[in-house]
Amino acid sequence: MKYVNIIFQPGSIGIQVETGTTIMKAMNQAELRADFPCGGVGKCGKCRVKVLAGSGELTASEKDRLTIQEQEEGIRLACLAEIHENMIVELLSPQQLQHHILMDALDRPFYLNANVIKQFVEVKEPSLSNHKSDWQRLKDALAIYGYAEHQLQVCLPILRQLPETIKQGEGKLTAVLLGLEVVGVEAGDTSANLWGMAFDIGTTTIVGYLMDLISGKELIAVSTLNPQAQYGGDVISRITFAGNREGMERLHRAVTVAVNGLIGEAVERVGGKRENLYAISIAANTTMHHLFLGVNPRSIGVSPYVSAFNQGLVVNAFELGLEINRAGQVYALPNIAGFVGADTTAVLLASEPEKRDYVTLILDIGTNGEIVLASNKKMVACSAAAGPAFEGAQITNGMRGAIGAIDHISFGENMEFSVIGGGKPAGICGSALLDGVAGFVELGMINKRGKFLEPDELTKTHSLRFKERLIEYDGAWAFLIADAVETVHGRPIMITQNDIRELQLAKGAIMAGVKILMETSGSQFDDVKEVLLAGAFGNYLNPHSACVIGLIPKELEGKIRMIGNAAGTGAKIALLSADEFSRADNLADSVSFIELGSYSKFNRIFAENTYFQLD
Amino acid sequence: MKYVNIIFQPGSIGIQVETGTTIMKAMNQAELRADFPCGGVGKCGKCRVKVLAGSGELTASEKDRLTIQEQEEGIRLACLAEIHENMIVELLSPQQLQHHILMDALDRPFYLNANVIKQFVEVKEPSLSNHKSDWQRLKDALAIYGYAEHQLQVCLPILRQLPETIKQGEGKLTAVLLGLEVVGVEAGDTSANLWGMAFDIGTTTIVGYLMDLISGKELIAVSTLNPQAQYGGDVISRITFAGNREGMERLHRAVTVAVNGLIGEAVERVGGKRENLYAISIAANTTMHHLFLGVNPRSIGVSPYVSAFNQGLVVNAFELGLEINRAGQVYALPNIAGFVGADTTAVLLASEPEKRDYVTLILDIGTNGEIVLASNKKMVACSAAAGPAFEGAQITNGMRGAIGAIDHISFGENMEFSVIGGGKPAGICGSALLDGVAGFVELGMINKRGKFLEPDELTKTHSLRFKERLIEYDGAWAFLIADAVETVHGRPIMITQNDIRELQLAKGAIMAGVKILMETSGSQFDDVKEVLLAGAFGNYLNPHSACVIGLIPKELEGKIRMIGNAAGTGAKIALLSADEFSRADNLADSVSFIELGSYSKFNRIFAENTYFQLD
Repeated sequence: MKYVNIIFQPGSIGIQVETGTTIMKAMNQAELRADFPCGGVGKCGKCRVKVLAGSGELTASEKDRLTIQEQEEGIRLACLAEIHENMIVELLSPQQLQHHILMDALDRPFYLNANVIKQFVEVKEPSLSNHKSDWQRLKDALAIYGYAEHQLQVCLPILRQLPETIKQGEGKLTAVLLGLEVVGVEAGDTSANLWGMAFDIGTTTIVGYLMDLISGKELIAVSTLNPQAQYGGDVISRITFAGNREGMERLHRAVTVAVNGLIGEAVERVGGKRENLYAISIAANTTMHHLFLGVNPRSIGVSPYVSAFNQGLVVNAFELGLEINRAGQVYALPNIAGFVGADTTAVLLASEPEKRDYVTLILDIGTNGEIVLASNKKMVACSAAAGPAFEGAQITNGMRGAIGAIDHISFGENMEFSVIGGGKPAGICGSALLDGVAGFVELGMINKRGKFLEPDELTKTHSLRFKERLIEYDGAWAFLIADAVETVHGRPIMITQNDIRELQLAKGAIMAGVKILMETSGSQFDDVKEVLLAGAFGNYLNPHSACVIGLIPKELEGKIRMIGNAAGTGAKIALLSADEFSRADNLADSVSFIELGSYSKFNRIFAENTYFQLD
Repeated sequence: MKYVNIIFQPGSIGIQVETGTTIMKAMNQAELRADFPCGGVGKCGKCRVKVLAGSGELTASEKDRLTIQEQEEGIRLACLAEIHENMIVELLSPQQLQHHILMDALDRPFYLNANVIKQFVEVKEPSLSNHKSDWQRLKDALAIYGYAEHQLQVCLPILRQLPETIKQGEGKLTAVLLGLEVVGVEAGDTSANLWGMAFDIGTTTIVGYLMDLISGKELIAVSTLNPQAQYGGDVISRITFAGNREGMERLHRAVTVAVNGLIGEAVERVGGKRENLYAISIAANTTMHHLFLGVNPRSIGVSPYVSAFNQGLVVNAFELGLEINRAGQVYALPNIAGFVGADTTAVLLASEPEKRDYVTLILDIGTNGEIVLASNKKMVACSAAAGPAFEGAQITNGMRGAIGAIDHISFGENMEFSVIGGGKPAGICGSALLDGVAGFVELGMINKRGKFLEPDELTKTHSLRFKERLIEYDGAWAFLIADAVETVHGRPIMITQNDIRELQLAKGAIMAGVKILMETSGSQFDDVKEVLLAGAFGNYLNPHSACVIGLIPKELEGKIRMIGNAAGTGAKIALLSADEFSRADNLADSVSFIELGSYSKFNRIFAENTYFQLD
């Protein structure tokens, strides 16, 4: 078997594939979300991509569907074009990159041991001398495989199906078991079909991973925007919307529909069916967790911010309206506190900081930053209300990290930036704001309070190159990133004095959280051996920029490691391992939650850390 | 407090009541089913009864509602008439005695220990320094009462209610617990409201007992005909009707509606509400058990007659469509085999034959007779297909033991009979058929094969008195019980040659069952110390008649004890004691079921026992 490399642009996402693989399959393999409306048979032409290098011969179908100009430009249909040599592909359609979601995982070994297992058995025929009931004969058949016959449990819906199932399969049937409870019976041998799906339900995005519970292999990853967004962009506005029964129901239904949609998409894309799914695991922040389970998160929204419950929970999928096998169960990971949710538990499950003999700092930065400091099995955690600056909200030209967003800025001879999806920019996202402000700090263009110097106060040689970019905006200075002619909408894109202020509040909150955790656990920067950045923002930011602006302590710059969507990884682990899922309760319990608002020095520490540290 | 006696006729049902009690209350206390459409306020006049002795002054309302003639005849309204001295009351309305159902119980001591318990707690308010979740604070509150906090379980519906419940009760709430699982939460202190209902679901009749789970007291008993009867009178025709999905659903729905109706009636009559019910226990034959649980009984109907399952089962009441508290559970007792059901298990639970060091024979005689022979903890059981003769079906003038049925016949100087409900007879029921045929045996009017002697062959002096009653019917002799002018319909009532034949088949089957059980367990008649007769028919028959005709071995006549509706008693015990319910599985398992059809000597023994034993 021969392997070749394929790199997708923008983003330089590279993977290795077998020769002959189609670009569509490679996109799936690289977990790049894309729609193939015709099902990938070359009919709809919606999967146009531009092959920058390594294109081979066009197929006949492609020649039919693509104009001469398109063919000359290197356009191909991803579903038909095969990869035979190293290839660079540019993704063209916004759908192809609409959700720039991180789905790489922190791999760690664990014992594959799914909660749900299948056992194919042959049930003996009854006779006048063996007039045992159907259920008793099933227990006898399972006993052959070592199941303690007297401890086997069953519930009514299964007993209702059992006689017909035995009849249909002529005694041959597959039992679906959760421990010693038979939760499903299927005629014939279906033991090879055993899938599950791990979900990371974020406030903004929902990611699902379809997993084979027998091999432990990930079959496909799918994602969608959380449709609850129409009822409020952040956790607090969702809690408010859930204030009355109808609002609560709408939010619950919205996420249920979305999850069912992702399940359908995933199974369709791998050519399976919903009935093959027997388990779903859930990582989510506490509010998303409650809303998904239909539990009102009201009390999370008001002091003292308590959740209805934190404990890990197993729920019948049917009861939750999830369209998978009738025997399917939902494994909801435990929360830690009202603002440190099951997603953080999942990150801990994936990264195992409690098993190390050194101090680890774990940051999942977003509107609410979750911070965990782990040392010698003692873990402290807090939630820092960073506000929406990192998501690009309340920033003059801010936007989410989607197509058209400037995601990185660098200051060399010239100022340069990259745009998600290529093309002209429409705004800047959080990671670019970080780069920009970090540049201003290093160039000496702002003071420690974050205020732009007057253009004629600039002293550093380097900074003088960018003097012309300082423009007046709203009665203060702003820094021009892209001229009106360079942008998609014909308006300039800049970083304003106010944007810097927003960023200062955000990074001050995170840093205060980090420092308070260190203080309460008696740790010093020197003790910290590793900083793990989890989540989408943490994996797109430039760590150097984060350290320059003081979002992450400068002292830790060399110790930073990005661990991808560790919450998703944790959810996968919980799905694939009953031991890991049940261990999660202890893990969550062992974390001491620090409520920053009740920490007397919080305001002072927060204020101090809104400042920048200049050289 | 002064007590007086009241006796209800027909049936001579006597109870003691406080002076001043209304007749209506006394009827309830005596468990006599009656309708009081206006709710017992003297408005509808439907509860007319005839006071034969001890009537006092009529109330003003009664004077308004009753005619002068009625007043002179001693008619009173049961809902208004108070009892101040010993009283004899004749029930007039067929409704008042429509279901002549046995509800006395075999009392035996057991430890009151209901599966479901309630615990009132006060949940601490959360604060910034105690930001535990609602569930954790409830667990903390329960821990004060000795509940192992780490083992407490909860399910999603309860977690959904918990925040609102805590809020409503301002921290004061009552937890409903099944072992260590919280299955309900109620604002405030509701710990005094804890009821359950035990059901004996028969093919013909459903009886329910409303019980207080705290005191163990029976609050009221209610009953109704099993509405499934419209789809078939016996077990086999129900199984046939359940052959397709729609039939199955109709049968399941019919019994569900009936049980819900009885629950409603019971709680209304004691002035409570459905929400106070948290547990339901079920005794039933295997087919009724399956139909009630929505499990198709198909395989019970065909050889080798296996059930879908026998094991005891706990099911959420809501899942079964039962309208009681949302936290309510259903405890279905285990079956023993396809034709020896949970009702037999209940009889064993109530009568505890396995705890005695002597041999006990237990008979529950009906269309299917269930027979258990218990000795030294070893129990064998069988089901004998007696056919419908005991229920009065396929008998020339047969009818069920309802109003108008001749229920007993005696042969002294003259032949006398009694009629259920008094008045003119409409037919004879099983117990009278037994008495009649026993008389024929003792009078020497039939030979050992059951054939009537010719009138001129009669030799016994006694029999000559009844010679005139021998009439020709359908080409054979028949015995006239009631002349055409004596009956309600103007047709004679008789016992025909064919009726005797039907009875022979029925008693032959029961006796064969008894003998085969004795043979397989190596017991002799001398070993049997007690014969327990359970069920309605067993408690209405004349034991002497049963022994004369050979339904019960003559040798055991002095050892017979009637134990009332022991299946109902067993259901009550299972409801009131978690230990007894869980012990029932072992009890049912310990019974060896003998399939009579597979017993090689069955046909010979059956045929022998259709004969009568003449002196």
